[in-house]
Amino acid sequence: MGKEENYFNFSDSDNFSKHVGIEMLEITEKSARAKLNIQEHHLNGVNIVHGGALFTLADLVFGALGYVHDQKAVSVNASISYFKAVSSGTLIAEGKLVTLTPKFGSYSVQISDEEGNIVAVFQGLGYRRQQAMVQ
Amino acid sequence: MGKEENYFNFSDSDNFSKHVGIEMLEITEKSARAKLNIQEHHLNGVNIVHGGALFTLADLVFGALGYVHDQKAVSVNASISYFKAVSSGTLIAEGKLVTLTPKFGSYSVQISDEEGNIVAVFQGLGYRRQQAMVQ
Amino acid sequence: MGKEENYFNFSDSDNFSKHVGIEMLEITEKSARAKLNIQEHHLNGVNIVHGGALFTLADLVFGALGYVHDQKAVSVNASISYFKAVSSGTLIAEGKLVTLTPKFGSYSVQISDEEGNIVAVFQGLGYRRQQAMVQ
Amino acid sequence: MGKEENYFNFSDSDNFSKHVGIEMLEITEKSARAKLNIQEHHLNGVNIVHGGALFTLADLVFGALGYVHDQKAVSVNASISYFKAVSSGTLIAEGKLVTLTPKFGSYSVQISDEEGNIVAVFQGLGYRRQQAMVQ
Repeated sequence: MGKEENYFNFSDSDNFSKHVGIEMLEITEKSARAKLNIQEHHLNGVNIVHGGALFTLADLVFGALGYVHDQKAVSVNASISYFKAVSSGTLIAEGKLVTLTPKFGSYSVQISDEEGNIVAVFQGLGYRRQQAMVQ
Repeated sequence: MGKEENYFNFSDSDNFSKHVGIEMLEITEKSARAKLNIQEHHLNGVNIVHGGALFTLADLVFGALGYVHDQKAVSVNASISYFKAVSSGTLIAEGKLVTLTPKFGSYSVQISDEEGNIVAVFQGLGYRRQQAMVQ
Repeated sequence: MGKEENYFNFSDSDNFSKHVGIEMLEITEKSARAKLNIQEHHLNGVNIVHGGALFTLADLVFGALGYVHDQKAVSVNASISYFKAVSSGTLIAEGKLVTLTPKFGSYSVQISDEEGNIVAVFQGLGYRRQQAMVQ
Repeated sequence: MGKEENYFNFSDSDNFSKHVGIEMLEITEKSARAKLNIQEHHLNGVNIVHGGALFTLADLVFGALGYVHDQKAVSVNASISYFKAVSSGTLIAEGKLVTLTPKFGSYSVQISDEEGNIVAVFQGLGYRRQQAMVQ
């Protein structure tokens, strides 16, 4: 079994992203991708996808990348900016490593719709607990 | 029927926060509160409440306050910092207006556990579309 | 000599805030304040105070509070939202502790003009290096 | 005289970045770069470059890109994460457009040292006032 496959342990045991209905597509050392097929339960009161659903989609990708770099990594801060309201179709979140220090990792995630329009941009900062302990 | 009651239209029609299991408790001009009773489906792969669930809880409070100040308000940016991992009990998010300009509103939301410990701190920036249109 | 006085060592040795022209007013365990008298050199190309000058003002207050809680604290993340353009007068930044964990501290700083209008809102996240080392 | 040259009007009239000692290197539709030669007056109390100096460097690049896309653009939010302490040498900030909507623009700026190490990562959100007015 390859190293990449193991990374999916991260998302396989994640109840919340399953409850939301997010599917992890890819996890590698440098990038990760996940998918959300928009359903009724993702919408807010004005029938667009809830910010919390978008955040959760991006956060799963961020978490997967953090896990790859330190299995005890924890999120310390995340920010999201929204650029396009969507109410149907499929959303893809694609994340990549920005930089890694002994204690912290910075990741950037973009959520796009089927036409490739950017729906939201997410930045996550992870604390590498395991690494920090050995220093 | 009072003015405050109407604000609950905001959360009553929000599918996603219902799917997550969040209950809106209070919405006034200056503050709002919501509650999450932690259940299995809120947990991530290491059995703590998922960042997406925390974000959604805070985001609902932020959205409610934005709605009070402009019924067509949209979120443009939000950031969250995490301070305590929790895996059971009840979480309360309490939000308040920071400042309001003709076009933007800034809100701060704190999530606390039952002992009053701060679990996460959230900042939201809303764009007041309706106000912006009349200017 | 009291404990409070010593905290000013923090700002006394800060070249950059002196170069910008910021005066530290107060540093206590829970809050800190600094002042900027707006001069020509603080303005940007459209004659309003530069975002970098506002950020530096808030950052000094954040740094002072971080120093009080851990003399080896370092800033890991900061965000600022702007609400009012200003071009003259005096600005006051007032910061307070939001929450403190063994490894991190969260601080909130508001910049106001002479009439008490909020000009900018700043959030800072500090890593308590000294505390983290002893754990 | 080319279009690109005109963009430098943006930084030529910026008092604060001159006071700090920042030199704009390049401004195009999609990217911009600026430089800071670290001097004594950029240091904080522990002899590393002050967060406010780093922020100002990144903010100038962000502002230049915002100006290219809307000459009346204003910054509404910016966040910065720090990854490496530096105390001498030259810093380069390189920014690029992330996405542009009719009302908002999102920009990402990275600050690197001479060896290409990432010192800080900056995200800026601009409000396109001029565009917003004609809609």
